[in-house]
Amino acid sequence: MNNQFILDSRLANDCFEVINLKLSKVLLMNNNLFPWIILVPKKNSLKELIDLNAEEQNLLMEEISLISKAMMKLYSPDKLNVATLGNIVEQLHIHIISRRKNDSAWPQPVFGKETKPYTEANKQKVINDFLQYIK
Amino acid sequence: MNNQFILDSRLANDCFEVINLKLSKVLLMNNNLFPWIILVPKKNSLKELIDLNAEEQNLLMEEISLISKAMMKLYSPDKLNVATLGNIVEQLHIHIISRRKNDSAWPQPVFGKETKPYTEANKQKVINDFLQYIK
Repeated sequence: MNNQFILDSRLANDCFEVINLKLSKVLLMNNNLFPWIILVPKKNSLKELIDLNAEEQNLLMEEISLISKAMMKLYSPDKLNVATLGNIVEQLHIHIISRRKNDSAWPQPVFGKETKPYTEANKQKVINDFLQYIK
Repeated sequence: MNNQFILDSRLANDCFEVINLKLSKVLLMNNNLFPWIILVPKKNSLKELIDLNAEEQNLLMEEISLISKAMMKLYSPDKLNVATLGNIVEQLHIHIISRRKNDSAWPQPVFGKETKPYTEANKQKVINDFLQYIK
């Protein structure tokens, strides 16, 4: 499934790679304002959830759960936001975002809101924190 | 699963009931600008996807696929948006929205954007259209 998968260039530019799961590549969005993971199923030419077969959909749900549980342990969010929008980046990708009632966008969605890049040290800390739970 | 399930009052006010599936209640958002379905798993006190067990998560994915396929047939969307946010309404609910590149919010998400209520006739037509595919 991993052979010759080509990550969308905008996702590659906006995110850091964390790890490869069975179905999905795990990316960390370069935005220090919210813990924000993006899952990208590693098959080319996917656009919608229904482009995955039933087995892959279930595997995706498992991987969403894995990331969600890691976020609960790491950040105790008030709410998780899970979304596949894809109006701008067409390649199928799923946002999983840890939200707090005192975050800069609450209660609005974070899409299209202000961003703040990670420092190198902060980025590496967040990636290492996630890797404790999703290896 | 359906016994004494209590739908959040804001969802009840903002939506029309379409049908009950095995896991979820299917609602039509009262917004004529976008074909917009909301799935609400019929168990009380759910907040996150990970509050569902694995079997329920897979069933939810099946029901998301069912609605998604109906939308593809009915509206030929340029993109489906599928999201569980819940920053305002805490009860777990999943938005499935048919988007067109010429719709009033494209390419932004539709959440918090302008709305336009259905006429009674239009509402009934949309519900009947969906019922052809999701009965």
